[in-house]
Amino acid sequence: MSTLHGSDEQYVVGVDYGTLSGRAVVVRVSDGAELGTGVHPYRHAVLERALPASLAGADVPLPPEWALQVPEDYREVLRNAVPAAVEAAGIDPTRVVGIATDFTACTMVPTLADGTPLNEVDGLADRPHAYVKLWKHHAAQEQADRVNELGRTRGESWLPRYGGLISSEWEFAKGLQLFEEDREVYARMEHWVEAADWIVWQLCGTYVRNACSAGYKGILQDGAYPSPEFLTALSPGFAPFVAEKLEHPIGQLGERAGGLTAEAAAWTGLPEGIAVAVGNVDAHVTAPAAQAVGPGQMVAIMGTSTCHVMSAEVLREVPGMCGVVDGGIISGLWGYEAGQSGVGDIFGWFTEHGVPAYVTEAAAAAGEGVHEHLTRLASHQQIGEHGLVALDWHSGNRSVLVDHELSGLVVGQTLATRAEDVYRALLEATAFGTRVIVETFRDSGVPVEEFIVAGGLQKNALLMQIYSDVTRLPLSVIDSEQGPALGSAIHAAVAAGAYGDVATAAKQMGKVRRHVFMPDEGRAASYDALFEQYLALHDHFGRTTTTMRRLKAIRRDAVARRSGSTSQEVSA
Amino acid sequence: MSTLHGSDEQYVVGVDYGTLSGRAVVVRVSDGAELGTGVHPYRHAVLERALPASLAGADVPLPPEWALQVPEDYREVLRNAVPAAVEAAGIDPTRVVGIATDFTACTMVPTLADGTPLNEVDGLADRPHAYVKLWKHHAAQEQADRVNELGRTRGESWLPRYGGLISSEWEFAKGLQLFEEDREVYARMEHWVEAADWIVWQLCGTYVRNACSAGYKGILQDGAYPSPEFLTALSPGFAPFVAEKLEHPIGQLGERAGGLTAEAAAWTGLPEGIAVAVGNVDAHVTAPAAQAVGPGQMVAIMGTSTCHVMSAEVLREVPGMCGVVDGGIISGLWGYEAGQSGVGDIFGWFTEHGVPAYVTEAAAAAGEGVHEHLTRLASHQQIGEHGLVALDWHSGNRSVLVDHELSGLVVGQTLATRAEDVYRALLEATAFGTRVIVETFRDSGVPVEEFIVAGGLQKNALLMQIYSDVTRLPLSVIDSEQGPALGSAIHAAVAAGAYGDVATAAKQMGKVRRHVFMPDEGRAASYDALFEQYLALHDHFGRTTTTMRRLKAIRRDAVARRSGSTSQEVSA
Repeated sequence: MSTLHGSDEQYVVGVDYGTLSGRAVVVRVSDGAELGTGVHPYRHAVLERALPASLAGADVPLPPEWALQVPEDYREVLRNAVPAAVEAAGIDPTRVVGIATDFTACTMVPTLADGTPLNEVDGLADRPHAYVKLWKHHAAQEQADRVNELGRTRGESWLPRYGGLISSEWEFAKGLQLFEEDREVYARMEHWVEAADWIVWQLCGTYVRNACSAGYKGILQDGAYPSPEFLTALSPGFAPFVAEKLEHPIGQLGERAGGLTAEAAAWTGLPEGIAVAVGNVDAHVTAPAAQAVGPGQMVAIMGTSTCHVMSAEVLREVPGMCGVVDGGIISGLWGYEAGQSGVGDIFGWFTEHGVPAYVTEAAAAAGEGVHEHLTRLASHQQIGEHGLVALDWHSGNRSVLVDHELSGLVVGQTLATRAEDVYRALLEATAFGTRVIVETFRDSGVPVEEFIVAGGLQKNALLMQIYSDVTRLPLSVIDSEQGPALGSAIHAAVAAGAYGDVATAAKQMGKVRRHVFMPDEGRAASYDALFEQYLALHDHFGRTTTTMRRLKAIRRDAVARRSGSTSQEVSA
Repeated sequence: MSTLHGSDEQYVVGVDYGTLSGRAVVVRVSDGAELGTGVHPYRHAVLERALPASLAGADVPLPPEWALQVPEDYREVLRNAVPAAVEAAGIDPTRVVGIATDFTACTMVPTLADGTPLNEVDGLADRPHAYVKLWKHHAAQEQADRVNELGRTRGESWLPRYGGLISSEWEFAKGLQLFEEDREVYARMEHWVEAADWIVWQLCGTYVRNACSAGYKGILQDGAYPSPEFLTALSPGFAPFVAEKLEHPIGQLGERAGGLTAEAAAWTGLPEGIAVAVGNVDAHVTAPAAQAVGPGQMVAIMGTSTCHVMSAEVLREVPGMCGVVDGGIISGLWGYEAGQSGVGDIFGWFTEHGVPAYVTEAAAAAGEGVHEHLTRLASHQQIGEHGLVALDWHSGNRSVLVDHELSGLVVGQTLATRAEDVYRALLEATAFGTRVIVETFRDSGVPVEEFIVAGGLQKNALLMQIYSDVTRLPLSVIDSEQGPALGSAIHAAVAAGAYGDVATAAKQMGKVRRHVFMPDEGRAASYDALFEQYLALHDHFGRTTTTMRRLKAIRRDAVARRSGSTSQEVSA
């Protein structure tokens, strides 16, 4: 391709902010070629146990379930990863016409009016609530429970747009926790900003709230947030939260938020004034990177968990979805999101804690990783030969049951059951979980026609074939190692005016291997028999009985008892 | 004690015939002291794949599920283990007044009229059906299914005496298989003899059918066997089976079957003419060894599986029991048997196939076995802290569901679940299974007052305490390493006239540490919460749904498909 283009070739930079590092990619505007990459880890990673003395003056311990980050670490990515990517690409930086970013979500930064993070304000560096609350900060569950309970009681119209459940990870739960636990920091906070938007603010000097996270994480529906009456009922004094801290003009995905400031140009080595795109969320930005911008194209970002995103022309309330947002993925379409709480992390947990030494040794002897080895053994089996069916709820279930008190289960074990049997049953269970989601979307009037996989699990061909057979869908695979960064680059190109819209840019710059795995009707029929059993278990444990919920309660009681007694066991 | 007795001390020999070897023990009549032991492994062990050329002239392959033995191997135990035990005891063999044996059951020997096993008859050594069918010969399931189906259809009164199910391991199923698969060998067979009685026949030259195996394994109830009409309906021509091959005078447990023959005296080195007791079954003979001869004293022989035996004055039909037999354990009382198909073998399977290298390495580093290590880790937990509940059906369920199509299950797993959590949940699951049995007996009018453990699992103090707490029963432990052989010795003493009956002898010679583990009400209450969930799963999977049965059927279909196709998987 490059020979077709002369010295007037243009480039864009996409920056993907993950949980532990930021990754910048230089991409050619004409065809999406990824020319250079730079990665920079966050100096402070995730603060889960304490604010370190280096930041707070003295160690400040954090309660359980907290997860904080440091905004300066994000700026460091701009100073390091972007120049590294440009250098690796070997391009002339003056040819870069735009930059765009995507971020984990919901990750929240409390700031002053000018965007200064509160932890950088004199006297607040030792206050945990002054820091960034990372997406996996799970200490606001109590607040989320109250949001949901009150939302149900009042029949709030926005609740069904989120499958009936607002997450503790989202803006309102985290904001309410801040309000209730550190009123002074709350009072100092002038904006409650998604990190996705804060980094854009750092780049162009303008705060633009992106439609994606405002919709999915900020409960912005049909132009409105939850009402002051709702907020008052939630917590006295919380009513002005939206008007004072949250509400802000919305930018659509792919729009230009502003021009690169002189300061940010100095950080990045990019030309001052180039287009900075409206912010975006890592999962959602992957859809155009996989050319999946049309109705019926469901993108599954499959890693430790799976996030499903899909656009549609219609607005429907799909039970158990994570959310539906106008322009949430592609401006002009309704963007749907669903999720499976545990996928790759279940496989990882099993290989780490459930596989005997003779298997790990055999894997090593064969020069294989444990995943690879178990996959090979399992691939020799007939469908159903292991006699097992599992529920993939080790981290709870998001879609479609929306119940984090659920847990994992394996049925059918005998003395002949071996590690590869359980492994395959776990692979299949996640595929069955996906089928439940796909069918729920279909049954709600939002048909799924193609299943496009991004993320690390695409490498497992057995898993991919199982997904295709179980869902009876053609399965396509993104053809990039860095989907989110490529997706951001696409948005940068649109913001820079190189393409008229994201869909057009995606067609030129996105990369997908289409229909790599096709369903086989014979295998699909064999899986139907197992799926029938999966569904019976799904409905029994997910909808009918309280067994799993009771087990969690019993476990909590037992842990609480531990602190009150020395030992419950007596030996003879 | 020994100083109380002079040179007129008397001794008995008990011989326990296990699956792979025979064990002889010399026991002092006055107090049950075990003075010397001899063990002799069976030369041919278990024939599962083929009759070897050394026996059959050429290798004769065996179909799946077959398990045969060679009668001469049993005689070898008399020639080797008995003299070895006498020598180890350092006693004068002329002081031995009796010998008794117990055997695995149902283990069947086809013989001529004089007791000659058919495999020793000229021209039959290459016929698999001429050999001993060991208890774990499971190739007669089809015949057992027909016995049960017809028994149900005809409303046969004996069926409820076996909890509603006759096992494929028992006399009728194995006999019907012989009848249908090798009519010539069947025609030559003049007796279909329990090995427990065949060995007594070898010792004293007299065939006496013992009440225990005739009742539990031979469907002898209220003095009658299944009728000729039933047998005809089962298989045309099978009607004379009982009259021609099976029916024989019954001996009660503890009775004298005859005197030691000159030939057997020469084999064993014991005096000719001493008492030879009526045969017995290994599990049942253990009850007097543990002094558990009264109503309400349930003995659990806990090893790879668990067998429960208990005597009672009343006859009740207990759902799912293995059988109730008049004089089946102690002459004059109704003997009840129940069982759990998988116990120690489930723990063994898990430690072998479900425990990661870092745990086995930690066990080795601590100088512990894996069981010991996991038990220690698990013992530090509060009850319910693991958040799990399991079903102990990896080998199906005998009592009380009587369904070998059931399978194992673990509910409640999360990414925080570790090997010791699952291990403890499996320990608890078997205890819950025992509680179901105990409660079913109680609810049927056969109360259980004390739980007495024999067998290898008694060594695990955590397991024992769990059983006591879960069942709210005082738990006693047999104080002998060789319960069955000691039990046989007790029967020998009674047969020799040293004691008036087995109960009296048991009081003098049996050994038990009483109430070693006592239930704690606090712990019992904690287990109640888990048991409630166990019971919900038990009834759901055991009585309501067909999930487990369907999974077995799917597995069988898949295995059958394997032979018809090369591979069902396609890799990309």
